[in-house]
Amino acid sequence: MIIAMKWGTPHIEVLRFVNLLEKRGVKVNVSEGTSQIVLGLVGDTTDIDEEALAAHQWVEKVIRVQEPYKRANRLFHPEDTLIEVARQDGAVSSIGAGKLGVIAGPCSVETQEQIVSIAESVKQAGAGFLRGGAFKPRTSPYSFQGLGCEGLELLLEAKKATGLPIISELMGIHQIEIFDVVDIIQVGARNMQNFTLLKELGHCHKPILLKRGAACTVTELLMAAEYIMAGGNDRVILCERGIRTFENYTRNTLDISAIPVLKKQSHLPVIVDPSHATGRSWLVPALSKAAIAAGADGIMVEVHNNPATALCDGEQSITPQVFSTLMASLKQYAAFEGKTL
Amino acid sequence: MIIAMKWGTPHIEVLRFVNLLEKRGVKVNVSEGTSQIVLGLVGDTTDIDEEALAAHQWVEKVIRVQEPYKRANRLFHPEDTLIEVARQDGAVSSIGAGKLGVIAGPCSVETQEQIVSIAESVKQAGAGFLRGGAFKPRTSPYSFQGLGCEGLELLLEAKKATGLPIISELMGIHQIEIFDVVDIIQVGARNMQNFTLLKELGHCHKPILLKRGAACTVTELLMAAEYIMAGGNDRVILCERGIRTFENYTRNTLDISAIPVLKKQSHLPVIVDPSHATGRSWLVPALSKAAIAAGADGIMVEVHNNPATALCDGEQSITPQVFSTLMASLKQYAAFEGKTL
Amino acid sequence: MIIAMKWGTPHIEVLRFVNLLEKRGVKVNVSEGTSQIVLGLVGDTTDIDEEALAAHQWVEKVIRVQEPYKRANRLFHPEDTLIEVARQDGAVSSIGAGKLGVIAGPCSVETQEQIVSIAESVKQAGAGFLRGGAFKPRTSPYSFQGLGCEGLELLLEAKKATGLPIISELMGIHQIEIFDVVDIIQVGARNMQNFTLLKELGHCHKPILLKRGAACTVTELLMAAEYIMAGGNDRVILCERGIRTFENYTRNTLDISAIPVLKKQSHLPVIVDPSHATGRSWLVPALSKAAIAAGADGIMVEVHNNPATALCDGEQSITPQVFSTLMASLKQYAAFEGKTL
Amino acid sequence: MIIAMKWGTPHIEVLRFVNLLEKRGVKVNVSEGTSQIVLGLVGDTTDIDEEALAAHQWVEKVIRVQEPYKRANRLFHPEDTLIEVARQDGAVSSIGAGKLGVIAGPCSVETQEQIVSIAESVKQAGAGFLRGGAFKPRTSPYSFQGLGCEGLELLLEAKKATGLPIISELMGIHQIEIFDVVDIIQVGARNMQNFTLLKELGHCHKPILLKRGAACTVTELLMAAEYIMAGGNDRVILCERGIRTFENYTRNTLDISAIPVLKKQSHLPVIVDPSHATGRSWLVPALSKAAIAAGADGIMVEVHNNPATALCDGEQSITPQVFSTLMASLKQYAAFEGKTL
Repeated sequence: MIIAMKWGTPHIEVLRFVNLLEKRGVKVNVSEGTSQIVLGLVGDTTDIDEEALAAHQWVEKVIRVQEPYKRANRLFHPEDTLIEVARQDGAVSSIGAGKLGVIAGPCSVETQEQIVSIAESVKQAGAGFLRGGAFKPRTSPYSFQGLGCEGLELLLEAKKATGLPIISELMGIHQIEIFDVVDIIQVGARNMQNFTLLKELGHCHKPILLKRGAACTVTELLMAAEYIMAGGNDRVILCERGIRTFENYTRNTLDISAIPVLKKQSHLPVIVDPSHATGRSWLVPALSKAAIAAGADGIMVEVHNNPATALCDGEQSITPQVFSTLMASLKQYAAFEGKTL
Repeated sequence: MIIAMKWGTPHIEVLRFVNLLEKRGVKVNVSEGTSQIVLGLVGDTTDIDEEALAAHQWVEKVIRVQEPYKRANRLFHPEDTLIEVARQDGAVSSIGAGKLGVIAGPCSVETQEQIVSIAESVKQAGAGFLRGGAFKPRTSPYSFQGLGCEGLELLLEAKKATGLPIISELMGIHQIEIFDVVDIIQVGARNMQNFTLLKELGHCHKPILLKRGAACTVTELLMAAEYIMAGGNDRVILCERGIRTFENYTRNTLDISAIPVLKKQSHLPVIVDPSHATGRSWLVPALSKAAIAAGADGIMVEVHNNPATALCDGEQSITPQVFSTLMASLKQYAAFEGKTL
Repeated sequence: MIIAMKWGTPHIEVLRFVNLLEKRGVKVNVSEGTSQIVLGLVGDTTDIDEEALAAHQWVEKVIRVQEPYKRANRLFHPEDTLIEVARQDGAVSSIGAGKLGVIAGPCSVETQEQIVSIAESVKQAGAGFLRGGAFKPRTSPYSFQGLGCEGLELLLEAKKATGLPIISELMGIHQIEIFDVVDIIQVGARNMQNFTLLKELGHCHKPILLKRGAACTVTELLMAAEYIMAGGNDRVILCERGIRTFENYTRNTLDISAIPVLKKQSHLPVIVDPSHATGRSWLVPALSKAAIAAGADGIMVEVHNNPATALCDGEQSITPQVFSTLMASLKQYAAFEGKTL
Repeated sequence: MIIAMKWGTPHIEVLRFVNLLEKRGVKVNVSEGTSQIVLGLVGDTTDIDEEALAAHQWVEKVIRVQEPYKRANRLFHPEDTLIEVARQDGAVSSIGAGKLGVIAGPCSVETQEQIVSIAESVKQAGAGFLRGGAFKPRTSPYSFQGLGCEGLELLLEAKKATGLPIISELMGIHQIEIFDVVDIIQVGARNMQNFTLLKELGHCHKPILLKRGAACTVTELLMAAEYIMAGGNDRVILCERGIRTFENYTRNTLDISAIPVLKKQSHLPVIVDPSHATGRSWLVPALSKAAIAAGADGIMVEVHNNPATALCDGEQSITPQVFSTLMASLKQYAAFEGKTL
């Protein structure tokens, strides 16, 4: 951590401040410039609060040099993390460490017929996981809010029929128990900084799919993962799903650079959700291929057998046919990147 | 609602689509252009899902003309909403409808001495409400997370000592019961789209201070208020606290235009939090005055007796002395805008 | 174009307004809702000014349904545009319509040795064009501003040595004559809305490489192309190079979705500049591959033989070795996408 | 300037790098941490290129502590800059150093009658300067582009009739000569980083009104001013006119914090353009008052006698009546802030 003192800070004040810092267990190197004094803190600064320092009367600027996350940091865990979910048919669905994971399914679970039929289609095309919303976060209180617990039950039926592990989004800590039936718990973008929820999920024994908030930086995403990991749950999958920008042709702007950046900074698997990132189904194939080319460990895609009658987000869902064609391309891309799908 | 059909849609498909729409209880006017057919939907379109329509094979674009919120809409409730909280000393603290409400206090409650002393200072300077964080949403799991329930108890002590109604931020629905002791419940920016929480607060009999999410539009803020109001709780205070942009000199960018925009679109009171909007205490006075000049119904300001030792967000807290000087200016501004402080 | 009238507009005013519009040569369909009157304009609305209409006393909202560009619009020119530049060695360098164009070279031209050596390296690796800055737009007046005309001369030497067509950025209309020596004129992101310059380039007989402004939408990029094309020059190459967002790990945020969006909306070739988009050389290979996977017609990459001593933007330049490895990957990706490199 | 070396950099490489730096005339302090070595550069680092350093093999991060601008920096010029323009009637129109300057007039000059009539109205209401566009930067090549030189002549007529100094926007360096007739030259937001133009204006003997680019930071605005000042022209007026964000209710988002930030960082006068910032006339009065309350040295407002028939940007123009009422309020606000209007 580096601290630039204000222009003209008296020497006695610098000394006092250095004393204060050294009492907190760090060593301080003082660089005296012609116009400004700069302090370099040496040692573990993880629990030193930048903002508290920045509020000090004689401090101009505080700059953190080391990343504020530890467990999610590749520096301390150079090996890729592999997330594996055992399937009832004896197979294993995997994401990370060279295994490409594809999660597919409808935005919302609607009926048994719908979810089983989609599950069968996506399994046949090569998906490793089935997704489906039971509880839906909707901008308007007057929109369809999901089937709730019945939705989870229908997902279980689809799992029974196909063997695919299931993944669904929970809305808050009150639902952790009922989500015991799913294989991977999804934290939605709007909950990425619901710290109470993240802490609870740290005590949970399931992989967590953590979606990036629309206004959150990659560092904040890694800090959110750190919240879960600090509780003891190391199985976190990071998901880039678009950030909010001035461009409004697409619903969000997929931050494709986040993939190699997250892979460099962290050992956790990184997947991409092109459906929510763009909000337009015709963009999904191009962005899925781009995600794999950029180094993603998988994708999560909305697939619906009849997008025009979907109860939510139909505009961003592709059909099973389009999904199947896409999977054929992705296999080529995966092979070229030295990954298995 | 207006629907532009795709270039070259066959007439028979237009007719089918119009039939489909009319079955949902709206009247459809068809405008046939030289190159495009445009449909105008007449009637109540609140429960028609734009996205589902947009997913239809022959639809190019769906445009909602009317605002998607009703209870928060000034169109249907032209009168300003006034939020009043009775005080134990018989007085009333108010926000809205010509009454300027000032909410002041520390980021975090730390000790009894601290909170009581700050409460006394801000009361003397003219604040109507005391704020103080008991549970703190922090980006890092290694940062101070607030005193928790003890913090709420210390707030109550400060209320007893000064008579000021208290306001504090809750983290999730599991805390609604313990927040029964506060006078106004604050929903933080990160929870603005925690729809489960919003629904629960709709059944609550306390005013809700709803902060705008850093990546949320004014329309989304009003939809979040609508979630609370749809449950029966009409006492919502909207709070602009900065949005996230590329400019990083300040922590966020205060969207000053949101004040007159929200006042035009809605009857709910609108306040501004200049402390979180900028993250720098020296900017607080200028932005507080600007907020009142732009028509805000109040401000929420962080005040700390010793910002450099604050356990969080010291950099953005002003001292009681600065607050007192600021209040003198705000009284002038309020008078000029025909409001009482 | 669709016009929503204000709630409560008197019928007589609607009639007057419709009359006014019909005098401008369009037909107006009136949809009368329960709460609002909506007008649909039929005919050519290109020269009707939305903003002037929106200023009218009784108008609530004006919505343009058709895209405001014509010559750049794929609707009216379904065939892909192919840009070809004849080379002195009899070969042709191409971009668009199935031909992948790779433009490589240093940020700034520095010395004859540097530019010739880089040109030879990139040619050998398979680049079709040589780029090099002679006049540099720098944020600080105290930074190196480029070699100027001497830089153009050195580029010509490199062209003589390798046969590669050259591309360089011009700063304003006063330089159009001296840029007669380059093969493709580059308009930088900061000049994307320098309309005076765009108009002049419309009368020029060279292909124009038009970079997207950091705060410009894809529609505005197409409108900028339209300015050039309206003057008669149809050879425009669109270049996505990152937009400005709150994420600051990378210099800009590459809008990968812009590639398929621009390809759908327009017949012009679309390339990507991963060097400026990220500002970090180690991200260039991943983003280059992603760009081709997303459908780009080429890339423009900064290559420097010694990035650490580059006079500008060294941090974002890759070495010839890295470039050569990247080209091998890109050939494979191009083949997947049915393109030739 | 501070340089964090990469984790694990060998000592011999640190020494080599320090040598390299010291050859460029700065002293280097080395702070050795447990996990990272940090260098502090002491001396004048203005002409050391951060990006070149950041490209070095062993460098992790480069952080500039001092601001990169000098002439625009309040640190070196603590006194406020006052811009004065002598009027033909012997009076003086001023902006800065306690004088509030109000610039008003139409978006575009249309006819002699229009511009003279508006000039008379705004003068009577208390404006100090007349604005009017002769050359207009328009997004579409098919929109009205301004009257050109005839527009400048009509502005001169209005100046003759009222005595108000005139201000108009130039499009490029080819127009500098014909702009000799105006009193203040405006550089539009799209030209804020047209460095060729800025350099030329540095040799000009007129005040320059420099508008902030929609995607430019406050630091970049000050660097643009530095370009002009480096050429010898110190009379620069900074203008905040909104930045581009995801919020699209308003055309741009007025960055109200930029006012106190620019005033702290620089001695140059700072004004606000609420018309372009919002694109909606009904927001102009609230934002004008907020600007003055936040410490602005003036405003620039679009006034049109008949907004609905304006040839451009009518939606954002207020009428002379609204302007006159607004001026009465602003006088009161100016008095609160100890300024004269």
